Amino acid sequence: MGPGPSDVSPRVLNALARPTLGHLDPQFIGLMDEVGDLMRYVFRTKNTLTMPISAPGSAGMEACFANLVEPNDKVIVCINGVFGGRMKENVIRCGGVAVEVVSPWGTQTSPEALEAALKQHPDTKIVAFVHAETSTGVRNDAETLCRIAKQHNCLTIVDTVTSLAGVQLEVDDWQIDATYSGSQKCLSCVPGISPVSFSDAAVNVIQNRKTPVQSWFLDMNLIVGYWGKGAKRAYHHTAPVNSLYAIHESLLMVHQEGLENAWQRHAAHHQKLVNGLESLGLSFAVSQDYRLPQLNVVNIPDGVDDAAVRSELLRRFGLEIGAGLGEFAGKVWRIGLMGSTCTEKNVQHCIAALDAVLNN
Amino acid sequence: MGPGPSDVSPRVLNALARPTLGHLDPQFIGLMDEVGDLMRYVFRTKNTLTMPISAPGSAGMEACFANLVEPNDKVIVCINGVFGGRMKENVIRCGGVAVEVVSPWGTQTSPEALEAALKQHPDTKIVAFVHAETSTGVRNDAETLCRIAKQHNCLTIVDTVTSLAGVQLEVDDWQIDATYSGSQKCLSCVPGISPVSFSDAAVNVIQNRKTPVQSWFLDMNLIVGYWGKGAKRAYHHTAPVNSLYAIHESLLMVHQEGLENAWQRHAAHHQKLVNGLESLGLSFAVSQDYRLPQLNVVNIPDGVDDAAVRSELLRRFGLEIGAGLGEFAGKVWRIGLMGSTCTEKNVQHCIAALDAVLNN
Repeated sequence: MGPGPSDVSPRVLNALARPTLGHLDPQFIGLMDEVGDLMRYVFRTKNTLTMPISAPGSAGMEACFANLVEPNDKVIVCINGVFGGRMKENVIRCGGVAVEVVSPWGTQTSPEALEAALKQHPDTKIVAFVHAETSTGVRNDAETLCRIAKQHNCLTIVDTVTSLAGVQLEVDDWQIDATYSGSQKCLSCVPGISPVSFSDAAVNVIQNRKTPVQSWFLDMNLIVGYWGKGAKRAYHHTAPVNSLYAIHESLLMVHQEGLENAWQRHAAHHQKLVNGLESLGLSFAVSQDYRLPQLNVVNIPDGVDDAAVRSELLRRFGLEIGAGLGEFAGKVWRIGLMGSTCTEKNVQHCIAALDAVLNN
Repeated sequence: MGPGPSDVSPRVLNALARPTLGHLDPQFIGLMDEVGDLMRYVFRTKNTLTMPISAPGSAGMEACFANLVEPNDKVIVCINGVFGGRMKENVIRCGGVAVEVVSPWGTQTSPEALEAALKQHPDTKIVAFVHAETSTGVRNDAETLCRIAKQHNCLTIVDTVTSLAGVQLEVDDWQIDATYSGSQKCLSCVPGISPVSFSDAAVNVIQNRKTPVQSWFLDMNLIVGYWGKGAKRAYHHTAPVNSLYAIHESLLMVHQEGLENAWQRHAAHHQKLVNGLESLGLSFAVSQDYRLPQLNVVNIPDGVDDAAVRSELLRRFGLEIGAGLGEFAGKVWRIGLMGSTCTEKNVQHCIAALDAVLNN
């Protein structure tokens, strides 16, 4: 019950362990088409260029920035946690100019602050932000932030690593131009794969760059020859065949449950966790107005030893919860209720184990 | 029996499907230490910075170039196949200056040509080449090429994707400063992981760069905080936990067989394949003096339909062999005898199936 990887179901582990096919085998290519369609379903998009990057979410982030940012491009990055900071680092390494819109940890990015930054920097090409900040448990208002960015004719890059399949996400309706997610959060697949999706506007920018993409491995102009809809499946790099079996299976599980039912399940079990932890006297670090149900950030009570509690939970109950990151290190615990981990049984187990460790 | 992925043994698939631990779980951290030690064993190195990149071999290649090449650095790239060409592309995308030493496909890189290029370009920082060219089946003379590079005070980057655990490779004795390999060739693990190793001299160059590494995801200065020997296992990106179980198991299998025994097995079964295919009237595209035992490149006889034969092999016998790449497209087949695929049974099966398809 940490901030990911979440529990991987036996069904996904069994898919993972199927015999390895060649990455150009006709049977495997059929599975690739289904993976693309299922990713479009969970992202709520019609984007043709929707596919898995063959590496973790951090590489998915880099794929979005390295393909869309050229040297000296101005990018507004909204920062209210670790992963906004990582976005800024990506902009700089691509030779772009990063303009920060900083909001306090544990609060949302302010739409007014973004609007002000856009007025101050009318030459901005891209607005980037994190939908679900895994370091703070905050849900940013992606719909509003994208609408403001679009009013200023900017492209949008949105981190949906922790949000995908856990809370509402509407890539097309919210006008998200590029997004990356992770396999190991609410999809409950093994870590190592990053679903990405690019709008036609983003693809157009990538195809008309003045400079080559600085990463050969992540160059979408090349990858599209293998992964693109109707592409000839031209070899670029060897696809991680078994991990793709696994993500196919985990996407299928979301489809079978129904995406909206999955959002509902996360919201319902979150509420039970809130009730239980509050009855133990614990408080949440984030307002309920924009709290992530899948990532519960709880204040560590005064006088309680952070590391000792976490290691006792692991030792006595086999229960992992996450430590705080960055500004929140030592101040909070992060309790994940993501994907297959998000069950009533786990909620009860977590409440009982924390009660035992804190109060006995 | 294509050019990889090779067959993955049930033992490795079972390891792959173990329950996913957190990437900071104490039990997982113990496994990380063993993975590093086993990689040092197969690379024949004492290099402290020896670890898996969380992505396929193409990302391992990029990790070596992006960390060692700074803008305007001169790099001599020896090209005698597709993967030498990919190295050159990496140099350019890192802002380096690539000097090509080109040798014909199907022949070795000439040491004299490298020597001449080094004399013509005394400001060269790095010499890069492919040990085992997967596109042509040629083994380059890594020991000699590295010795020449060192006489000119250059760093060496060597692609060992297809050579590792299939033919002799001596990272320390041959003075290789940076190398990357793949999981899905002679290690017979699932695709998606790239073992890399950096000498102390290479690490020193990486730590003293004038410019940041352009890839955040592949920046060894950051990754070392999680993977480094004795490191604090500081979070950088979420490690692909299950794929690491698998590569641990496949490395353990090489260790149990004994590395030199594995080289011997590849050599012996290769000879049986040669005998059988020559008795069918087929010829090899590469001289036996520098032919790779694990990647057999066979000339397609005149009048034979390349694609029709490969698809009939797959349909009638469930046997995949590889097509030619680049200059060799349509001219050769590539028959892999890598790792777990390299058995007498497979050799017999391949000879009999080709006989049936070509001669009946």
